[in-house]
Amino acid sequence: MTQWFYIADLAGVAVFAIAGTLLAFRKQMDGFGVVVLASVTAIGGGTTRDLILDVPVFWLHDPTYFLVILIAAFATIVWLRFKAYIPLNRLLIADALGIAFFTVLGAEKALNAGMSPVIAVIMGTMTAVFGGMLRDVLARDIPLVLKSELYATTCIAGAVVFVLLQPFSPTLALTLAMLTTL
Amino acid sequence: MTQWFYIADLAGVAVFAIAGTLLAFRKQMDGFGVVVLASVTAIGGGTTRDLILDVPVFWLHDPTYFLVILIAAFATIVWLRFKAYIPLNRLLIADALGIAFFTVLGAEKALNAGMSPVIAVIMGTMTAVFGGMLRDVLARDIPLVLKSELYATTCIAGAVVFVLLQPFSPTLALTLAMLTTL
Amino acid sequence: MTQWFYIADLAGVAVFAIAGTLLAFRKQMDGFGVVVLASVTAIGGGTTRDLILDVPVFWLHDPTYFLVILIAAFATIVWLRFKAYIPLNRLLIADALGIAFFTVLGAEKALNAGMSPVIAVIMGTMTAVFGGMLRDVLARDIPLVLKSELYATTCIAGAVVFVLLQPFSPTLALTLAMLTTL
Repeated sequence: MTQWFYIADLAGVAVFAIAGTLLAFRKQMDGFGVVVLASVTAIGGGTTRDLILDVPVFWLHDPTYFLVILIAAFATIVWLRFKAYIPLNRLLIADALGIAFFTVLGAEKALNAGMSPVIAVIMGTMTAVFGGMLRDVLARDIPLVLKSELYATTCIAGAVVFVLLQPFSPTLALTLAMLTTL
Repeated sequence: MTQWFYIADLAGVAVFAIAGTLLAFRKQMDGFGVVVLASVTAIGGGTTRDLILDVPVFWLHDPTYFLVILIAAFATIVWLRFKAYIPLNRLLIADALGIAFFTVLGAEKALNAGMSPVIAVIMGTMTAVFGGMLRDVLARDIPLVLKSELYATTCIAGAVVFVLLQPFSPTLALTLAMLTTL
Repeated sequence: MTQWFYIADLAGVAVFAIAGTLLAFRKQMDGFGVVVLASVTAIGGGTTRDLILDVPVFWLHDPTYFLVILIAAFATIVWLRFKAYIPLNRLLIADALGIAFFTVLGAEKALNAGMSPVIAVIMGTMTAVFGGMLRDVLARDIPLVLKSELYATTCIAGAVVFVLLQPFSPTLALTLAMLTTL
């Protein structure tokens, strides 16, 4: 189970890094800007969550996250140079999966840190949407998530489902919560 | 005394949440945007203060704060739908009271954490003005507080008064500091 | 050595505070806005680094940093009122020196906290560029550093040189890393 969690986490980071890279590319940023926007999008939510929970920031002892971000950003740039189009539909599905997973992961980490269910729901939502919000602030857009309700509402719903079911069966809770978020 | 502090704190949170909701409404944000802006305005300053002081973030173990924010935001939205006008004068007075109280509360928390008076003044000011600053950054305004000197100067003055008088008589210090800030 | 470090640190803070003051002046901010922009530019990077490393924030127990920021901001404003021009060339050199030093300092602090070399490079870069990024977000510019690659790339190069050489000879590593960053 833990192994699967880790792989799903890295996949979510990769998808979010791609989303950050696409925005940086559209804003005509250069190499460093791409890496910063990709990183902020991918790990900004989790970093804020860990700071507030006062647990060690998750990427401090595992450079794999940065490797994944660099590879995702680099691959995206290469793709953008050679192919003219972005497979937006598939990206949106991957993005939704990433959000669903980050929501559950954030809620679970808060519960593990001994937080109440209400805080766990807030932390799950924060993990999923804060990275994108920071990205949009840096790129000087009004954060998309503040304008499109649906996206965040599903996060909250997913986190609530996970927190309610988690005491009975973690695996079932995970599956249902992710389906709810989707 | 502590009981009063807590009630005043919640009242300050409610007023700041209303201010956040009004901005979100003006920017035509949806439900989630309203809640995020209301929350950031109401608890952003105190959260930043607690992270820097390295004390537990104040709302982690008390969901009442979120309840107050949700009620304040919801009531504001209902009010805006049914009544066309906002009682701006009364809101400004409430806002000033909230700022005065948050300044004193932030300075006191820093002193309690063993900080020097200079740091206490900085923390008091930060508690009072950071939430509004984050709100304006998210809503893509230049933070109002950076443009209108008076508002912040009174915070600093109030925090200085509180820190100077606090060793002699906490209650007196509180009253005078809040009058100074007002 | 430590004494030199401290003086260089304060000098870097002063230069960054001047840069923040210049932007606040150009955006026609008032007294408080100047102090906030100067502070955020000067200590924003180091504060973020200390929060993520979970070590005490460096300025909490040393008000000297704020004294330096206030003096630097005040002197800059006085200069701007009386002289019409800014010695931009000399300022750029001082800025580059500040960046070089902050990079090395951030990488060293991360190594001291037991972090891996990869994290040390990230922390060095973050210390040097995050303050300016926060400043630009507050003043509602797209962060300059995201648009001009060269500036950040040299930071990363400097941090890499420092981290690689540090086990052999700290002083040599410091000198070479700063030369690399410049």
